[in-house]
Amino acid sequence: MKVVVIGGGTGSFTVLRGLKNKVDDLCAVVSMFDSGGSTGLLRDEFGILPPGDVRRCLIALADESDDVLRQLFMFRFDEHSSLQGHSFGNLFLTALTEVTGSEAEAIKQASRILRIKGRVLPVSLDNCHVNAELENGQKIRGETNIDVPLHDPNLRIVKTWLVPEAKANPEAVDAILKADLVVIGPGDVFSSIVPNLLVKGIPEALKKSKAKKVYVCNVMTKFGETTGFKASDFLNEIIKYGGSPDFILCNTGKGSSALLKKYADQNQFPVNVDEATIKKAGVKLVTGDVISAAEIIRHDSEKLANTLIKLAR
Amino acid sequence: MKVVVIGGGTGSFTVLRGLKNKVDDLCAVVSMFDSGGSTGLLRDEFGILPPGDVRRCLIALADESDDVLRQLFMFRFDEHSSLQGHSFGNLFLTALTEVTGSEAEAIKQASRILRIKGRVLPVSLDNCHVNAELENGQKIRGETNIDVPLHDPNLRIVKTWLVPEAKANPEAVDAILKADLVVIGPGDVFSSIVPNLLVKGIPEALKKSKAKKVYVCNVMTKFGETTGFKASDFLNEIIKYGGSPDFILCNTGKGSSALLKKYADQNQFPVNVDEATIKKAGVKLVTGDVISAAEIIRHDSEKLANTLIKLAR
Repeated sequence: MKVVVIGGGTGSFTVLRGLKNKVDDLCAVVSMFDSGGSTGLLRDEFGILPPGDVRRCLIALADESDDVLRQLFMFRFDEHSSLQGHSFGNLFLTALTEVTGSEAEAIKQASRILRIKGRVLPVSLDNCHVNAELENGQKIRGETNIDVPLHDPNLRIVKTWLVPEAKANPEAVDAILKADLVVIGPGDVFSSIVPNLLVKGIPEALKKSKAKKVYVCNVMTKFGETTGFKASDFLNEIIKYGGSPDFILCNTGKGSSALLKKYADQNQFPVNVDEATIKKAGVKLVTGDVISAAEIIRHDSEKLANTLIKLAR
Repeated sequence: MKVVVIGGGTGSFTVLRGLKNKVDDLCAVVSMFDSGGSTGLLRDEFGILPPGDVRRCLIALADESDDVLRQLFMFRFDEHSSLQGHSFGNLFLTALTEVTGSEAEAIKQASRILRIKGRVLPVSLDNCHVNAELENGQKIRGETNIDVPLHDPNLRIVKTWLVPEAKANPEAVDAILKADLVVIGPGDVFSSIVPNLLVKGIPEALKKSKAKKVYVCNVMTKFGETTGFKASDFLNEIIKYGGSPDFILCNTGKGSSALLKKYADQNQFPVNVDEATIKKAGVKLVTGDVISAAEIIRHDSEKLANTLIKLAR
């Protein structure tokens, strides 16, 4: 079965880890517009494409028998050292980009060195930033400013776009066209998922592909980015930007009331699954307990992978 | 044939590269007292043993079929960037030391990842510095200050010692005891070679070992460190610090007069091979053209390795 996972953040990490030993042809299509932290520093200084999301996907797919190399790739230098909290994996990708002359080749070489299962493909090889507009007309520049908002968290994001425009990586388009299953998400909608759909050629490929397309809806709302979102609100953003999903997978598992209280204190709530509105959008709703909720509430790699594979059969 | 190469700088790099495909059991015993450049910065900040000399030996022994990984290990970030001209290989070893918890384990893991032929062993796992005293009584602290002298270059170094004292890495001692051939040098005497002999247990192991011990004499003098040195002067330093060589290998190849002129302009001259004095020291003199002298005059990997192997048979 050929599976493509579209995203970039920790959500993709979870999906990829679950799928990697269950699927023989797995491909991560990764957002390349991060602008914060170690990634942002390297991007600004070396003019390379941001390595952070690629790094996460590489680690998810890396050969688990080589734990040292995986640990090394995840290692972060002390924030207060002259290495400024850089992720070693980011430095690895930066140096590889300089040695090989391109990000695409650097990712291929890192994939080889880490002996990953599957492929990691940048959604685009163009260097651009995500911008957003709030409902009051205020504009925000850069993924990191959408992700960790300094703006009024009660205002909705009404529009996002890339500056300058980006065209799709042909390898990513090809993978989508040949896929049996395309998994969109989970992840922060405006900072991890939608940016992939803003790339010219990706919505077109999704429309054309014969794959079953599943949007994995978030489990919890995120204050400032998806305040008050119901499942249909998440879905509508995916549809609006050309995700054209056939299915939406929503979680029905529950965290303990003590845990939910902790989240509520930070203005984060379980996403309400509003079935009627979802149906009106012409998208099939699939539900199931796909989370682990021990200390934090998040998708569970195994549960999620099993549900997705069942869906694709 | 079991061969141990003692040194650390570019001289060891040359010997190891030449020997690696000719010898089935090759071991580099490496000085760990560098205090300058990228290595010095990491040493000061992270409290790790200096990675620079280990890095050079790892690259010399790395699997040459994986050129990207070797290139990556040799890559240096821009001096004017926030990464301060760090060698990527040094950052690799630093991060590995933090991940694995020790320099010895980090070197083993790096050896595995680079698929090196042979072994790289720190001469000691103790954290110390080389100090030196000039003939006028002036004291110099740190290898980098011996190597790139700010002191009067006409004054001889009369004494060197480690602060604090270091004891030998048992694996290095074991390798020396089991060797058929021990190659000491070539390299900067006081900054790359003698520091290994200052480690407690190394002179004792050299004396005890049944190996043929060859000191590879430098080809050119170095202004400030070995100004005016003849071959016997180099040899006497090695003997003085307990190198107990059976042979001294001196070069008879010649650079062009244009090239020698360039060196002379920097106060560097071919080392005069004073056979009579060498014989008095009870050490056998071996000579041969073992250099390449195209743009710079230096030992040639192939010529040197062939001469050394012939000697050991």
